[in-house]
Amino acid sequence: MSYYFSKTLQESWDKAREKVTEALKEEGFGILTEIDVKATLKKKLDVDFRPYVILGACNPSYAYEALKSEKNIGTMLPCNVIMQETKDGRIEISAVDPVASMKAIENDQLGKVATEVRNKLQRVIAKL
Amino acid sequence: MSYYFSKTLQESWDKAREKVTEALKEEGFGILTEIDVKATLKKKLDVDFRPYVILGACNPSYAYEALKSEKNIGTMLPCNVIMQETKDGRIEISAVDPVASMKAIENDQLGKVATEVRNKLQRVIAKL
Repeated sequence: MSYYFSKTLQESWDKAREKVTEALKEEGFGILTEIDVKATLKKKLDVDFRPYVILGACNPSYAYEALKSEKNIGTMLPCNVIMQETKDGRIEISAVDPVASMKAIENDQLGKVATEVRNKLQRVIAKL
Repeated sequence: MSYYFSKTLQESWDKAREKVTEALKEEGFGILTEIDVKATLKKKLDVDFRPYVILGACNPSYAYEALKSEKNIGTMLPCNVIMQETKDGRIEISAVDPVASMKAIENDQLGKVATEVRNKLQRVIAKL
């Protein structure tokens, strides 16, 4: 089972980041957190890693539904969208498939919400 | 399959938060992100929710191993630890089980890392 949706862009990093933010916004997601993986690994382990960021994307209405259905689902929120540089200098963007990450949870109501969010994140990636 | 480890404390929110930070630190995890769910839902949806925060915890060495094993695993990082107020005013703390969240991914090397991180997060919760 694949656990993400992905697309690779021929853009600058900043332009790709702009497109991701805009596409998320169109589907009702804000970006709540950002982790610069390259900088964190350099600082903590002194290793060199490719440009790689983890964006924590949240659609508040769906998050609220998920939290009402499953009180500890915050352990799997927000939905991450990652950006990383490929070997040939392009930018790969991947969104988590919440149906995959929440696969271990048996909760029909949550499953419905996860499926709707999956559809939205698929559209985000398709729009890029 | 349960997807988290949990403990409920008879402490103030601030004291509980301090204990979580310390227990994570002892197992090599820093807190990279923090989402105030109650404040976010109030701001975005104007709904009242119980005190609830999502802490993004990262053990850099294990994150690095995971990223080398599975290039898109950033879609499921960092490991979340959540704090929420229970109905009787206590503080419930839950850490994600990365073996559960990464269940859909077929990758033996990643599986080994996830199991080690699971053990660490179990110890974090046990120490509280």
